[in-house]
Amino acid sequence: MKPEDLKAVRAFVKECLAGPHTETDALEDKPSDVYEKFRETGLANWWLPEELGGRGLSLEDSVEIVNEIAYGDAGVAFTLFISVLGTSIVQLYGSEELKARYLKPMAERGSFCATLGSERNAGSELGKTETVVATEGDELVVTGEKFFSTNTDFADFLVVIARSAEDSEAYHAVLIPRDTPGVEIVKRWDVIGLRASYTYQVSLKGCRVPAANRLEGSGLRLLEIGLNASRILIAATAIGVARRIRDHCMTYAKTKPLRDGLLVESPVFAQRLGQMEMQIDVMKSHCLRAGRDYDAIMAAPGAAASFHRQGTLKSALTAKMFCGQAGWDVASVGSEMFGGLGYTHEMPIGKLMRDIRYVSLVEGGDDVLRDLVFNRYVIPVPRRS
Amino acid sequence: MKPEDLKAVRAFVKECLAGPHTETDALEDKPSDVYEKFRETGLANWWLPEELGGRGLSLEDSVEIVNEIAYGDAGVAFTLFISVLGTSIVQLYGSEELKARYLKPMAERGSFCATLGSERNAGSELGKTETVVATEGDELVVTGEKFFSTNTDFADFLVVIARSAEDSEAYHAVLIPRDTPGVEIVKRWDVIGLRASYTYQVSLKGCRVPAANRLEGSGLRLLEIGLNASRILIAATAIGVARRIRDHCMTYAKTKPLRDGLLVESPVFAQRLGQMEMQIDVMKSHCLRAGRDYDAIMAAPGAAASFHRQGTLKSALTAKMFCGQAGWDVASVGSEMFGGLGYTHEMPIGKLMRDIRYVSLVEGGDDVLRDLVFNRYVIPVPRRS
Amino acid sequence: MKPEDLKAVRAFVKECLAGPHTETDALEDKPSDVYEKFRETGLANWWLPEELGGRGLSLEDSVEIVNEIAYGDAGVAFTLFISVLGTSIVQLYGSEELKARYLKPMAERGSFCATLGSERNAGSELGKTETVVATEGDELVVTGEKFFSTNTDFADFLVVIARSAEDSEAYHAVLIPRDTPGVEIVKRWDVIGLRASYTYQVSLKGCRVPAANRLEGSGLRLLEIGLNASRILIAATAIGVARRIRDHCMTYAKTKPLRDGLLVESPVFAQRLGQMEMQIDVMKSHCLRAGRDYDAIMAAPGAAASFHRQGTLKSALTAKMFCGQAGWDVASVGSEMFGGLGYTHEMPIGKLMRDIRYVSLVEGGDDVLRDLVFNRYVIPVPRRS
Amino acid sequence: MKPEDLKAVRAFVKECLAGPHTETDALEDKPSDVYEKFRETGLANWWLPEELGGRGLSLEDSVEIVNEIAYGDAGVAFTLFISVLGTSIVQLYGSEELKARYLKPMAERGSFCATLGSERNAGSELGKTETVVATEGDELVVTGEKFFSTNTDFADFLVVIARSAEDSEAYHAVLIPRDTPGVEIVKRWDVIGLRASYTYQVSLKGCRVPAANRLEGSGLRLLEIGLNASRILIAATAIGVARRIRDHCMTYAKTKPLRDGLLVESPVFAQRLGQMEMQIDVMKSHCLRAGRDYDAIMAAPGAAASFHRQGTLKSALTAKMFCGQAGWDVASVGSEMFGGLGYTHEMPIGKLMRDIRYVSLVEGGDDVLRDLVFNRYVIPVPRRS
Repeated sequence: MKPEDLKAVRAFVKECLAGPHTETDALEDKPSDVYEKFRETGLANWWLPEELGGRGLSLEDSVEIVNEIAYGDAGVAFTLFISVLGTSIVQLYGSEELKARYLKPMAERGSFCATLGSERNAGSELGKTETVVATEGDELVVTGEKFFSTNTDFADFLVVIARSAEDSEAYHAVLIPRDTPGVEIVKRWDVIGLRASYTYQVSLKGCRVPAANRLEGSGLRLLEIGLNASRILIAATAIGVARRIRDHCMTYAKTKPLRDGLLVESPVFAQRLGQMEMQIDVMKSHCLRAGRDYDAIMAAPGAAASFHRQGTLKSALTAKMFCGQAGWDVASVGSEMFGGLGYTHEMPIGKLMRDIRYVSLVEGGDDVLRDLVFNRYVIPVPRRS
Repeated sequence: MKPEDLKAVRAFVKECLAGPHTETDALEDKPSDVYEKFRETGLANWWLPEELGGRGLSLEDSVEIVNEIAYGDAGVAFTLFISVLGTSIVQLYGSEELKARYLKPMAERGSFCATLGSERNAGSELGKTETVVATEGDELVVTGEKFFSTNTDFADFLVVIARSAEDSEAYHAVLIPRDTPGVEIVKRWDVIGLRASYTYQVSLKGCRVPAANRLEGSGLRLLEIGLNASRILIAATAIGVARRIRDHCMTYAKTKPLRDGLLVESPVFAQRLGQMEMQIDVMKSHCLRAGRDYDAIMAAPGAAASFHRQGTLKSALTAKMFCGQAGWDVASVGSEMFGGLGYTHEMPIGKLMRDIRYVSLVEGGDDVLRDLVFNRYVIPVPRRS
Repeated sequence: MKPEDLKAVRAFVKECLAGPHTETDALEDKPSDVYEKFRETGLANWWLPEELGGRGLSLEDSVEIVNEIAYGDAGVAFTLFISVLGTSIVQLYGSEELKARYLKPMAERGSFCATLGSERNAGSELGKTETVVATEGDELVVTGEKFFSTNTDFADFLVVIARSAEDSEAYHAVLIPRDTPGVEIVKRWDVIGLRASYTYQVSLKGCRVPAANRLEGSGLRLLEIGLNASRILIAATAIGVARRIRDHCMTYAKTKPLRDGLLVESPVFAQRLGQMEMQIDVMKSHCLRAGRDYDAIMAAPGAAASFHRQGTLKSALTAKMFCGQAGWDVASVGSEMFGGLGYTHEMPIGKLMRDIRYVSLVEGGDDVLRDLVFNRYVIPVPRRS
Repeated sequence: MKPEDLKAVRAFVKECLAGPHTETDALEDKPSDVYEKFRETGLANWWLPEELGGRGLSLEDSVEIVNEIAYGDAGVAFTLFISVLGTSIVQLYGSEELKARYLKPMAERGSFCATLGSERNAGSELGKTETVVATEGDELVVTGEKFFSTNTDFADFLVVIARSAEDSEAYHAVLIPRDTPGVEIVKRWDVIGLRASYTYQVSLKGCRVPAANRLEGSGLRLLEIGLNASRILIAATAIGVARRIRDHCMTYAKTKPLRDGLLVESPVFAQRLGQMEMQIDVMKSHCLRAGRDYDAIMAAPGAAASFHRQGTLKSALTAKMFCGQAGWDVASVGSEMFGGLGYTHEMPIGKLMRDIRYVSLVEGGDDVLRDLVFNRYVIPVPRRS
């Protein structure tokens, strides 16, 4: 990443996300022009490979970018990076033709894609997926109902995980253009935070696509692989929000009178902020390392096969777990720094708490992730840290 | 307390607060008819003494009542009990005439009073109070601006803490009828939770009252004494909210499929809920004990003098601290029990988290309370537990 | 309890347990004369009923007594109260004759008894008990190996939990005099704290006792009932140790220079100690309540039947859980108050940490207790707090 | 670092530190032959630069090495790496002649050095140092009493921080050969853990050395700089101990029966271990990054000046803070995994808890470090993470 890139991101944040916290905390129907503004930086979908017309930035770089955007607003960050979940699956397991047809335009236009995994009864247990994909001639027909999927309404295409009609033990990942007949938005979820983002419940009613739209490999495994990048970047949003909380505390403390001086001079305040800074510093170290772990596989020959072998990466799991926990701790302590004002909307802390909470709740709660870490990385002795 | 009383409270909760959580999470201008309904139970201002026409229920009983109402909605509970802060000051330090004129009608009509302590620059440090009370003939004139005061707009009267114009080291507590010219609502605070409650910023522009409206004793000490009852009941709201969270978790877990069974059968879920139940049980023990501590002083001869000597009670401080912390922990863990749904407004957990947060933020944050506990109850060796 | 009793306990602590912490941290073969000294107060086995010649103090009183002794030394406290586990079983479920023969002398002589429940493969899962009791004529023969049992070597008698040889689904509790042939001490456990206490591995080789030595009711249930008293008193030791830690911190801070003053004047130190005091205060409220819960059943007619119906009491479980957790927190924070000295044996904090740890580790770890709380007190809706 | 090096370390650990945990938990008078054995690997003082005959391994490599040794025993690790505190000061701020005379032999012989900073009244506040260094002709005379210093008795030389007799505002760091008359061991500290290490209270009675033995720069600053390396490696010991705890839990759980299976199959156990593994993974990421931060400065031209400008490095502070906290959490949870056995010396968990505690207690407690982080890295806006 060139230094100008990070500068451009910071400029975008300063220009578009420095207003009252209530602005991005609103729930509009369609992505507001803040996303248009980001496109103008030329960094939209920054991770798409150069050979497809993208910027080809690494996941380590992405951690820095997401950290900066989330400092402005976590929901905006989420909307901007979550397409990586779908594009990384297509990039690794799609045919050259699919990549040219779907990823190239995303790089050019800075548009979005969506991934549809979870269902009402298949949240952390994707083996219970009921959406079905059937082969009819040289077409695939996908039918089902998906629970949580982000960006779907305005996405170019969807990556849908579905059970094979022909083999109930098999799962596929199928690329479905958004404008395919049968793709219907059931509703937009009314979420408690991250309210600049867009998550939908979606119905798929006999959506037909060419058989070539099936991605190579087990659908469940492909989803797991796609979640590596998104989980690391979800973790990275916690860094940005935590930094924002710290800075709000400092700004407030510099004018808040306390005894004969200011809050910022209080040794107790120093303790709280010193601990916060430590947590931020550690979050950053770990997310960057998780990014490098991912990049190392992605850059090596045979990335698709490597990822297929490994599935979920340990540091992607531990980054999301750790940043969710440490971020929540920062927010909880932070919310106590403003006295009674911290309980009002005059201060952004209420919004920041709601925002950061998502880190521990989406793409697998901690109970699910701890279980994965245990079974994949503690039980097999050589995979332990 | 007669068993019927608690039954009546539970019936009220069932009838009026069992609707969608979004109802009480709204922010209306005036107390909705839910408060009218509570009046019908005959329990409004249940703590007012029998000799003034009240029900004379103890603070230990109040803990139970508040626990039950808060199970329905913490904001409703707060609105219903917070008058105790003002009435207990008037009851202990007001003349017989003031009590007859102001507390009696409150007992009859189930109306409200408000206490105005904090100012923008005098939150936890009330020695910085700038509101001034001046003596003019046999009248008092009160001028200033108060930051956070609950129920003021629709209260019968206000208890205002003010610095003496004659002696800048002295503070008084003055009873000002709501309809006194010069009492002006600056704004209603837009709060992050407890949205069925009403907290205002208030301006006092030369409000004139008879000199007899001054309560006996130091204003700062009187406020401290009044906070004993309200802090214990704020703590008690945490019990109610925590119980509600636990019950929501259980309801959800009984139908949520997990592997071959249900979430409720998961040993990990049992761990989370077993810990929660322990915390609820301990909160309850401690709030009830704090209530008894308070009742013991209140029931003994010379209560006013005793309270004046002791000021803030240890168990009132520790109850609010503990229930704020344990309640937050319950809410944090609780919010992880619903998977992604816990991040949406389909589930009440987001609202319950916002509600319970107030316990640690109002009437003294933990940093302030820890300091008080240390200086009042650890430094003097015989006052240690 | 008469005020003199608590005074006598405090005098004992002052006289016998005020020496260097290393004294009680030693591991002697037999109870040292500190136990002889306690006998002189007339309070040994203070809970034994008056009709058996005991002092008949309640469990609420016991919480106070244990708190005081544990302030001196937790291991001494444990040795002095743990007989309650066995005596309460005998008192509730033994024949009048057994009580006269075994409890009366304990009241007179201030001697000890032991309870033998756990086995190597039956720790938290007593259903796996392998010790067997067989009926031979009018005698019982007990054979097996017990893992952890306290005071056994110098006890008057043992209460042993064993599986019935005649019905493998049935468990009995059998009173075996210590001097019965076949009772053999395998070893004394070398424990990490509580080193003034005595816990043994014991072998039972065909120990013969009269059939009348069998206590009435299911052995597993009886053990569960006996654990009510001991768990509450284990919890109470945490109060004493935590208070000791607090006092050590205060003593140290009063002479430790910090900047231009003393550590005790530091606002950060005030935070740590204010939090500690709160935790101690809550522990105390809850243990006393647990004591009252127990006493209420014990004092009512039909106590034996009531206890048999209820089994493990909720507040006994939650007291041990809470005090173990809060106590550990106090100790962890406390150990940071002494700088590098806190890592040496010049300060007692290392010993106090090792001592207090036992609260969470013996008579059921928290994972086991959380599970019990969940299954017994959350699943059945009316038993929730 | 060559892969053989880490292999050699692991072989050393396996050979010398795989015995019963009680072996290294003993307190012998002089370093046992375990240190002789380590010398045979050729890795003693592995960080000394190649130009002085050392192995020149980086601090990032050192993190790996210390992690491995601490897996065997934290006290052995501490003894082996703590010389880095003194050698890094000499390497950066000593004359070429001093380096040749004192560091070269350390590289050859694998011997030790010691750093003497703290005093009874100057622990975290080194400005209160009372040890004095006076200039007499071309000699320096050092007099005072130092509180905690590791390895001193058997060190080649000591680096002593002292106040200037000529300028009470100035502090120097002086290299004093161990055999200088006047260097007297007052006592060896009896520590609660890390009992394979050797920390002393030392008296300096008019110790005379050539004026050239004074190191260049402010003594307080030099100490702060030396602590960068040692704090990072102290943090790294926590990784090793935490990994050992995890592995003990796993070993135990694989044979411990639970219900119809084994403890290792319990979903609750999986939660505990999954969380632990996450914490270990994050500790490792952060220590390695702290190592790289240090190495980057050390490898660049003008390292001495850079370090002098920066003083204490942020990641050195945050690594020690984080690993102390996370490590303690791992140990606390770990100690609950063994049931009652975890309270006995049959299991090493008691020893491992005592060992890992030192991370938060030596070279600055968390309260001190949080204050440093706040003042150095939060107050100056551009230094925030």
